Amino acid sequence: MNLETLREATRRQMPDKRWKHTLGVVETSVKLAERFGGDAAKAELAALLHDYAKAWPIDRQAMVIRERGLPPELLDFDKELWHAHVGAWAVREEHGIDDEEVLDAIRYHTSGRERMTLTDKIVCLADYIEPGRDFPGVNKIRRLAEHSLEEGLVAGFDSTISLLVEKGKRIFPLTVIARNGLIDELKKRGQSELQGG
Amino acid sequence: MNLETLREATRRQMPDKRWKHTLGVVETSVKLAERFGGDAAKAELAALLHDYAKAWPIDRQAMVIRERGLPPELLDFDKELWHAHVGAWAVREEHGIDDEEVLDAIRYHTSGRERMTLTDKIVCLADYIEPGRDFPGVNKIRRLAEHSLEEGLVAGFDSTISLLVEKGKRIFPLTVIARNGLIDELKKRGQSELQGG
Repeated sequence: MNLETLREATRRQMPDKRWKHTLGVVETSVKLAERFGGDAAKAELAALLHDYAKAWPIDRQAMVIRERGLPPELLDFDKELWHAHVGAWAVREEHGIDDEEVLDAIRYHTSGRERMTLTDKIVCLADYIEPGRDFPGVNKIRRLAEHSLEEGLVAGFDSTISLLVEKGKRIFPLTVIARNGLIDELKKRGQSELQGG
Repeated sequence: MNLETLREATRRQMPDKRWKHTLGVVETSVKLAERFGGDAAKAELAALLHDYAKAWPIDRQAMVIRERGLPPELLDFDKELWHAHVGAWAVREEHGIDDEEVLDAIRYHTSGRERMTLTDKIVCLADYIEPGRDFPGVNKIRRLAEHSLEEGLVAGFDSTISLLVEKGKRIFPLTVIARNGLIDELKKRGQSELQGG
């Protein structure tokens, strides 16, 4: 696997605007990995590939889920979740990516999940705050991301949940589960700091 | 089972303020049942008993969950959810209530659940809007409850979710799943109305 080939292949999957966003997520993921002791190479690779299938026609995404052994219950969830799982499938199939940590970070970059790895957290948070992002509350999330991946991500999920409540739209249960897990992590860490741990 | 005996037994489980709230939920549940074609007797019974174990010491609630075969994963959830399940257990054990529809409405009155029955919806919504309730947004929920159980409940869950986001607290995944289910119901109904159904 050659990184330059992979970049070109990824770029060909999407319009320019999405590619610009991808480069923003790569840049931010590397920064976050350095800031929080993550694996910068894995974070960079997952970030590059996170939206690989985002611009694929929705029918093609559904076909991959149905015919290539992806969890069929995905079809009951919101379509915005599909591209993450389909993307993980595609980069394994088309480019032989087989690092499960990288694949999971692609799979869960939109929803989060119960026990997020460091790489999951980095890519998911970078996706919220890359320089091209502009939505109410993004600067608060950027500030929190200066000192805590978990606080930044909780604020990111908060903004998503609040927007969905406001619009009367469905909320992904997995995002709530991810947020609960991060709150628990922060609470435990607070307790161990209080105990001098 | 004598309703008057049951009222007295329920009243003895809780302080006066909680009893006053209970009477409010009873009154509102009966009204909602009449308005939306529910079973007023079941709604009244479930409403009377919905907070049966709410004022029990938390250790006693945990002991019931551990020692009386309630789902042990309840202990991983927020304590506010316990009294609903413990209450359903207690009214069966102590008063022989065995109508599963009534017991479910007690069990899920705090969280909601995926496919809420009419009685579930009535008691859960009544718990939000009984006359003694006063919180931001309650009058909006009351207005919606004039014409739709589901719209009222979505607004109720929205207020709960927004409060938990604001306070940085965990959200019950089941509440999000309940809200998603209600949104789907409203969408389907809207579609069938458009088709003249």
